[in-house]
Amino acid sequence: MKTITSRELESVDIELGEDMLQGNRILAERNRRKLDEAGVYAVDILGSVGSGKTTLVQQMVIHLSGKAKTAAIAGDLTTTIDADRIQQAGAEVVQINTGKECHLDANLVHRALSELNLKALDVVFVENVGNLICPGEFPIGAHDRIVVVSTTEGPYMIRKHPYIVMETSVVVVNKIDLAEIMGVDLGQLRKDAQDVKPGIGVVFTNARTGQGVPDLLQLLRIPKS
Amino acid sequence: MKTITSRELESVDIELGEDMLQGNRILAERNRRKLDEAGVYAVDILGSVGSGKTTLVQQMVIHLSGKAKTAAIAGDLTTTIDADRIQQAGAEVVQINTGKECHLDANLVHRALSELNLKALDVVFVENVGNLICPGEFPIGAHDRIVVVSTTEGPYMIRKHPYIVMETSVVVVNKIDLAEIMGVDLGQLRKDAQDVKPGIGVVFTNARTGQGVPDLLQLLRIPKS
Repeated sequence: MKTITSRELESVDIELGEDMLQGNRILAERNRRKLDEAGVYAVDILGSVGSGKTTLVQQMVIHLSGKAKTAAIAGDLTTTIDADRIQQAGAEVVQINTGKECHLDANLVHRALSELNLKALDVVFVENVGNLICPGEFPIGAHDRIVVVSTTEGPYMIRKHPYIVMETSVVVVNKIDLAEIMGVDLGQLRKDAQDVKPGIGVVFTNARTGQGVPDLLQLLRIPKS
Repeated sequence: MKTITSRELESVDIELGEDMLQGNRILAERNRRKLDEAGVYAVDILGSVGSGKTTLVQQMVIHLSGKAKTAAIAGDLTTTIDADRIQQAGAEVVQINTGKECHLDANLVHRALSELNLKALDVVFVENVGNLICPGEFPIGAHDRIVVVSTTEGPYMIRKHPYIVMETSVVVVNKIDLAEIMGVDLGQLRKDAQDVKPGIGVVFTNARTGQGVPDLLQLLRIPKS
């Protein structure tokens, strides 16, 4: 089998890209300062479309109800489906429609944060655009980043996305009720994640029922109030 | 709910992007001529990670065995997992590792086509990088493009990706054996696709068993030999 790598074709792109990535990092640090000054914890939630990000955010909002004041920023190409669902769970939501862009960036998140009354909040969930590739290089200033994969994506999804797992605090393996029917070995997924990033937190959830959500909240660095 | 759109921020990006997209379109036309001169039909296969693209390619290779000579080009970030699986089904495979790039482009596919003996082939399957966003704007010169969605991605995956459905010949809804357990209405998915693009072909498959694969091959414009 022949293998081609795309690296040598991209000299111009890379230079331009570096400027853009550097600019994004500076804006991400500004977001972090804004959050810290207001005493707000933020988590960036990545995952493919259909992995269960929105349902997880709904569940975390419900589990934190009465303990922390939550809001969400939801990135999506064109629809407000996710934002509507999170709002139903009781959190204030700012929707970011990215059009054809496949990730949020620190500037968009900065504008969304400006729409929220941060002083009245404890936790902001940022649901990124649904894919496991582009958001990787665009930190948004969050305190933690979680990657949500689903057993229904098959057995290789962690091995296929080492870059993004490297830049993640916690891997959430969702839809564990379907692991057996999908022929997916949960222990192997944990091992794959820890091979990429030793010591990384791995949580198994069924977001529909809420199973595993308290374990996930434990692993996040949400300040105790 | 507040909604922010990313459009106004991107004036510089858009201009640069247009040059790049225009360049890609020219290279895509060159690929198409190269394919047509050799009498080879090519199909670009898009879908999220875990939607079943590789298994579908394996099945199509097996179904065409003895009827058409097939090869595959497999795009992936870093691994050769997909390429290995397709090769086992009996097709020659060229692997393209895109690193952090979230799509194939016409230039990469051109290089991959140069690795194949096109004169000896009838059909080339191009498995794009696993996500439903970035590959949309990068035609590669294929005769058809199919989008693979899986019932396990939940009920909204077509409504959430109108741009890519617009640029597609056939929508494949895979893992139909799990539709009921996932609470996904296949008729609604067909309707969602046809709302976005009236007349678009919609096929229901279970790629693991091969169910629906002959219907899919019927809808592709593979020349009868």
